Amino acid sequence: MAQAENPDLVERAINERLDEHIENVLKLIRQPSIAAENRGIEECAKLVRNLFKWVGCTTTEIFRTPGMPVVYGHLDCGAKTTILVYLMYDVKQVEGQHWTLVKDPFEPRVVEMPPFRRVIVGRGAVNSKGPMMAFLNAIRTLMDIDGRLPVNLKFVAEGEEEISSPHLYGFIVEHKELFRDARAVIMPLASQNIKGEVSLHLGCKGVYELELECSGESWGHGPTKDEIHSSYAPLVESPVWRLVNALATMKADPVDPELVTVKGFYDDIRAPGQNDRALLETLAKRVDFDSIKNSLGVKRFYNDLSGTKALERLLYTPTLNIQGIKAGYTGPSFMTILPSRAKVKLEVRLVPEMSAERVNRALTEHLRSRGFGDIRVIATDDDFGRAVGEKWAITDPASPCVQAAVTTYKELGYDPEIWPRMAGTAPLHAFTNPPLGLPLVIFGLGHGAKAHAPDEYYVVEGSGPVKGLAGAEYSYVRLLMNLARAYENP
Amino acid sequence: MAQAENPDLVERAINERLDEHIENVLKLIRQPSIAAENRGIEECAKLVRNLFKWVGCTTTEIFRTPGMPVVYGHLDCGAKTTILVYLMYDVKQVEGQHWTLVKDPFEPRVVEMPPFRRVIVGRGAVNSKGPMMAFLNAIRTLMDIDGRLPVNLKFVAEGEEEISSPHLYGFIVEHKELFRDARAVIMPLASQNIKGEVSLHLGCKGVYELELECSGESWGHGPTKDEIHSSYAPLVESPVWRLVNALATMKADPVDPELVTVKGFYDDIRAPGQNDRALLETLAKRVDFDSIKNSLGVKRFYNDLSGTKALERLLYTPTLNIQGIKAGYTGPSFMTILPSRAKVKLEVRLVPEMSAERVNRALTEHLRSRGFGDIRVIATDDDFGRAVGEKWAITDPASPCVQAAVTTYKELGYDPEIWPRMAGTAPLHAFTNPPLGLPLVIFGLGHGAKAHAPDEYYVVEGSGPVKGLAGAEYSYVRLLMNLARAYENP
Repeated sequence: MAQAENPDLVERAINERLDEHIENVLKLIRQPSIAAENRGIEECAKLVRNLFKWVGCTTTEIFRTPGMPVVYGHLDCGAKTTILVYLMYDVKQVEGQHWTLVKDPFEPRVVEMPPFRRVIVGRGAVNSKGPMMAFLNAIRTLMDIDGRLPVNLKFVAEGEEEISSPHLYGFIVEHKELFRDARAVIMPLASQNIKGEVSLHLGCKGVYELELECSGESWGHGPTKDEIHSSYAPLVESPVWRLVNALATMKADPVDPELVTVKGFYDDIRAPGQNDRALLETLAKRVDFDSIKNSLGVKRFYNDLSGTKALERLLYTPTLNIQGIKAGYTGPSFMTILPSRAKVKLEVRLVPEMSAERVNRALTEHLRSRGFGDIRVIATDDDFGRAVGEKWAITDPASPCVQAAVTTYKELGYDPEIWPRMAGTAPLHAFTNPPLGLPLVIFGLGHGAKAHAPDEYYVVEGSGPVKGLAGAEYSYVRLLMNLARAYENP
Repeated sequence: MAQAENPDLVERAINERLDEHIENVLKLIRQPSIAAENRGIEECAKLVRNLFKWVGCTTTEIFRTPGMPVVYGHLDCGAKTTILVYLMYDVKQVEGQHWTLVKDPFEPRVVEMPPFRRVIVGRGAVNSKGPMMAFLNAIRTLMDIDGRLPVNLKFVAEGEEEISSPHLYGFIVEHKELFRDARAVIMPLASQNIKGEVSLHLGCKGVYELELECSGESWGHGPTKDEIHSSYAPLVESPVWRLVNALATMKADPVDPELVTVKGFYDDIRAPGQNDRALLETLAKRVDFDSIKNSLGVKRFYNDLSGTKALERLLYTPTLNIQGIKAGYTGPSFMTILPSRAKVKLEVRLVPEMSAERVNRALTEHLRSRGFGDIRVIATDDDFGRAVGEKWAITDPASPCVQAAVTTYKELGYDPEIWPRMAGTAPLHAFTNPPLGLPLVIFGLGHGAKAHAPDEYYVVEGSGPVKGLAGAEYSYVRLLMNLARAYENP
């Protein structure tokens, strides 16, 4: 028996190294890595490669893609089972955000945030440099103890998760031989909410992001170059009004203003099956909708939904969200101009069996049929020439890796809420779809919040059932052991 | 006979001083004076007061208002007639603009801009520090020659023309006794287009600017504080979509997307009378619509209008223009957020007999009746508690000051295009309305363009019929003489 099977010994080893482990998290956050701005990505990729070497990978490589590089590492322990570990090393933008607990989101601080004596505040703290480093800290500790792990690991760390992973799937397809022996995929994250409750998501929604631009140039009406003086408005038409009117046709139901009135938008939706309904009903009894509303700063949900109905809407309904809109002068006071262009950032959350390509076609056809064919649909193509977006992903609840995750949580005293999918998006489809077609679990004790928002944090020192860094690390150690068992004794 | 009646002598005197006169314009532009940002206003007011002293005013004063100060000057020459001179010393914002001919719009340069060997480029060059300084240069030259003018002048220079002159009317009302002896008002501007054609505008449109804000906070739906993660969009409603949908109800005519579908919006409009129609028909023969389109960078006018119909629409139709709209994330790439608020800047150009108050009521009632009563209408009140806006203004074509202007242009070899009003707005109503109720002309040879826009310029050295700075100054000299004659021998 490996020494790592002795829980006391592992916990002690982690605790002895805790100061160093915290510093490792801080160091990783200090390296900015904003894909949307191509800021610090190269430097962070090198840092991650060094971390892979530090945990014991014998092979590491920074693979080039048409976008940001993918960092690969192979930790071969001669074990029977190989697990793919999916990591992301990029983070969300911080521009325009007002952080209150740190001056610079890339100068993280360890601060008190009751009920927690210590949390790390900084961009990427919980999404996802904190959990990523916790996992690597755990691996290095296990290697220190035993010189090997119960499973072999193959790491894939991408640097453009926050911009929809446009090249991850292409990378996987190109290098599929590298992963032929992988049995499952794990993504280390912090899965506890502030009460310590654990969630396990069996898949995710997809997302398709696009811009619409209305300009005098492509319309042939309105100002074609710069903005003009607004006194000409009686004779010169406005691309801004045109975009507003075009958008309004997309949510134009007189009864339900939330209904998307784009033909074909809802055509590919699959209603929840029997098994999903059962999961939803169990889940509805445990989810505290008031506390979700509270943490979001939202007074009322759509139609005051709660319970199973709220969950079904959250997880099975696609959305057409406006991330932002901008045209003309938006500074202080006023400015008498008639702008020459207007732009809106739209986002569609995709549920099975929707696809970005079909949504793109539906939106384009909608604009054309309503007489707005000149409005440009700006969306990037991926490596395969398809509309960029991330697909939704589904993992079978019966797969050994899901069972290993549930077992681990239960051994550690937690009864996880099992979600048929998450409302958000992660690039899980790159692994769950062919050619790999692997089951995938997002796993980890630990808590943090405010992903993408100011004062993002990750708990270092837990409170009550909420685990801190050491507890998170220990949960990863136990998961690896249970994965080895699940795949060796099916 | 005053020596100034000798044209050669005056022209020579102006030309001798031309370098100094150019430098005076540059100096005035170098002093930023952006009312919208309260930038440099105090400094510019002092500079203007010193200019009033320099031209020979015996009384000068900087009057405080609830907003930016008004600079007053009295140049008493013991003449029979007193003329009020309206000036503005503030300029438009430059933020976000890309100037190509100067690095800093407040570091003006004299550059070649064919067909002109010399133009001044900088913020305020033509709107309106160039013409203002040209007028003051002319006055000072006349004073140098004769020690007096043919009329007495009372200067009113305001510092918030570009933010709708919220306190000018209040100032006039409060100090009406100061202006009891004024017979007419002149505003020095550059009235020539690039071909040298002269326009004379008998009044102007009004303008009413306001913001609409939709927020989760006042709506009770959607995020009430910060933006939230967009994965919650199925359950959390969007203030941005709501603002878009609300706006779309304001231009919702299926046949004419330019028609404002706000009840009462067009109620107060007065169709052009017989005299106005005659002016429009004469004007239509002279206006070159293609060259207007060209200079605006517009391929087509609304419904391809031209001639009298285009002029009638331009001058007699109110507009509901979007100056700008902003919500959420508008930087590079995408950001998966659901914004908590959205704001739009609207602008209504008012024609007789519309009023800002009635438009405000119509818009507010429109929002309420369409179920958007929570959308805030943000408009500032003026000193009298009325919705801020500038009224339209009308001047009688038969008034002596209009006749003096026409005579001056004709003496100088120009046949002015007479417009019943301008499509734009100036705070003329403060003078044309009671208590003063004075006729007003905007006057001046000279040319410049790109007011409010990047690379705004004012011609220093004319070409063909386009007069440069010296020609502009001379036209002001002649106007004052003709005003004296018109009011002394009616």
